[in-house]
Amino acid sequence: MSPATRGKVERLLEAHAYRRTTRVAREAPLIELVFHELDSVWSMELIRGVENLAKAHRASVVLTESGTRHAPGPEWIEGVLRRRPIGVVLVFSSLPDAVKRQLDARSIPFVIVDPAGDPEPDVPSVGSANWSGGVVATRHLIDLGHRRIGIVTGPEDMLCSLARLDGYRSALSMAGLDHDASLVRFGDFHVEGGYARAMELLRMPDRPTAVFAGSDLQALGVMEAARVCGLRVPEDLSVVGYDDVMIARWSSPPLTTVHQPLREMGEEAVQMLLRLRAGEPSVTRMELTTSLVVRKSTAPPPTRPTTPARPARARR
Amino acid sequence: MSPATRGKVERLLEAHAYRRTTRVAREAPLIELVFHELDSVWSMELIRGVENLAKAHRASVVLTESGTRHAPGPEWIEGVLRRRPIGVVLVFSSLPDAVKRQLDARSIPFVIVDPAGDPEPDVPSVGSANWSGGVVATRHLIDLGHRRIGIVTGPEDMLCSLARLDGYRSALSMAGLDHDASLVRFGDFHVEGGYARAMELLRMPDRPTAVFAGSDLQALGVMEAARVCGLRVPEDLSVVGYDDVMIARWSSPPLTTVHQPLREMGEEAVQMLLRLRAGEPSVTRMELTTSLVVRKSTAPPPTRPTTPARPARARR
Repeated sequence: MSPATRGKVERLLEAHAYRRTTRVAREAPLIELVFHELDSVWSMELIRGVENLAKAHRASVVLTESGTRHAPGPEWIEGVLRRRPIGVVLVFSSLPDAVKRQLDARSIPFVIVDPAGDPEPDVPSVGSANWSGGVVATRHLIDLGHRRIGIVTGPEDMLCSLARLDGYRSALSMAGLDHDASLVRFGDFHVEGGYARAMELLRMPDRPTAVFAGSDLQALGVMEAARVCGLRVPEDLSVVGYDDVMIARWSSPPLTTVHQPLREMGEEAVQMLLRLRAGEPSVTRMELTTSLVVRKSTAPPPTRPTTPARPARARR
Repeated sequence: MSPATRGKVERLLEAHAYRRTTRVAREAPLIELVFHELDSVWSMELIRGVENLAKAHRASVVLTESGTRHAPGPEWIEGVLRRRPIGVVLVFSSLPDAVKRQLDARSIPFVIVDPAGDPEPDVPSVGSANWSGGVVATRHLIDLGHRRIGIVTGPEDMLCSLARLDGYRSALSMAGLDHDASLVRFGDFHVEGGYARAMELLRMPDRPTAVFAGSDLQALGVMEAARVCGLRVPEDLSVVGYDDVMIARWSSPPLTTVHQPLREMGEEAVQMLLRLRAGEPSVTRMELTTSLVVRKSTAPPPTRPTTPARPARARR
């Protein structure tokens, strides 16, 4: 069938609200999992969540990376229509409307896992509580005695960055502390951005004694900036991450961070698929709870006056 | 068909050297990828390699985690026989002989990716050059001027651990240096093992000035042990890892390590599958080259006499 013919048939099927009645019989025990890019540190946790729950339902997971595009290519939808999976889980991806209609016409449900907190309104999605995460991270630093707390949040155009920043500001306000706009930086969610923005903060004459980094990767960049400036973590500078991916446990010192339940988000996405497939009512948007994990990168601020940062080699 | 009947048919098919002639027509553009466990830091690199090459051949990847077992369960082989994939890539897993016969009977090729260097002799496999990796890591430390070089290699019962240890010993011998058996430790390839074994080494009266850790995770444990002992990396202690997974770039300081071409190993495994499927002659065992990546965790040894390690908090 040519794409044009297929499109015509799809539209006719849709116009007549046609649903194949043989779906369940012909469906394969597969769950399609589509990533925008696989090399994020989140990917493995999400894959494990989806894989866990798929296994519990005796289904296998078909993995696709959409690569440079934010939506999978046309050969992907051909494969899905041929494979007839239980459903589709998209991570940070979206689907063109024509593809959504094709899936709908075959009653193949789809769900978006969207840790960035900016889902399409008409697609069921799973996220996590970013604002609350920003509050608990900042409150932890305030409770330790920090008063000059910097933040390197994510990119300015992502809702999750803004939610975490608002949580930080609200925690400061609730504690009766002023916001100092000079302590706020926007990063890129990567190590490099955390490093560059932290260097700016640590070179300030009145540098912060603690930094809330908007992701674990940014926190690693902040720790490297501290090392280069001759500051010890946590003795001279406290650092809080966000995500709680595996590297957070393995950094030196182990990172205090906000746990984002990535595995559970993957599991919940599959649960949503199964409910949608069974025709059960399902919420359109679900946000799972975030929580603070205290490790060794945070401590009370130094008691001596804050000294300007010196390079590591000059410390002997 | 019951498993017993299926087994009987399989044996008859095998006895008569029967091969389905309709294979190519009925085959699905899928590659089965089976992991023993997904949470290894290697997993993502290997997945990307397999996914990259699958995509280039317009195939999708079906991901399965065998979990506690080292071979996938019976429901897996049922699914594979139903899906009729191009082939099967196993990571650190093996297949029961009955399953091998079932795949053989349907001309579904299988390849093992085995970074541990201990493949089954009758199954095509892809690994990497562990002995050479041990040599380049140790030679780098010798070239920097280190004479007391410790090693925390992997578990004693894994060939790759022994190959890396032998490479270390040979590099010392080639440089005319003695081996000191007290500087050799066996770890577990995890952060915890690296930490515990490094604490033993760093508490020795005549501690090493450099440690070759048998994996990047163990290297992170060694760096954390150094921090706890009040030693700076690389000023007081040089550390070399092994694997070059993403965290090696992100540690503080960034880790000098031996690059294991995990992505290329995944790609090569798919190439082997495609050659086997096409009936082309293929090598049974392929080892890809390892190479040193110099970052910031290694430096010349300290010029002052080695002092016993002191705890971090006492350094002010």
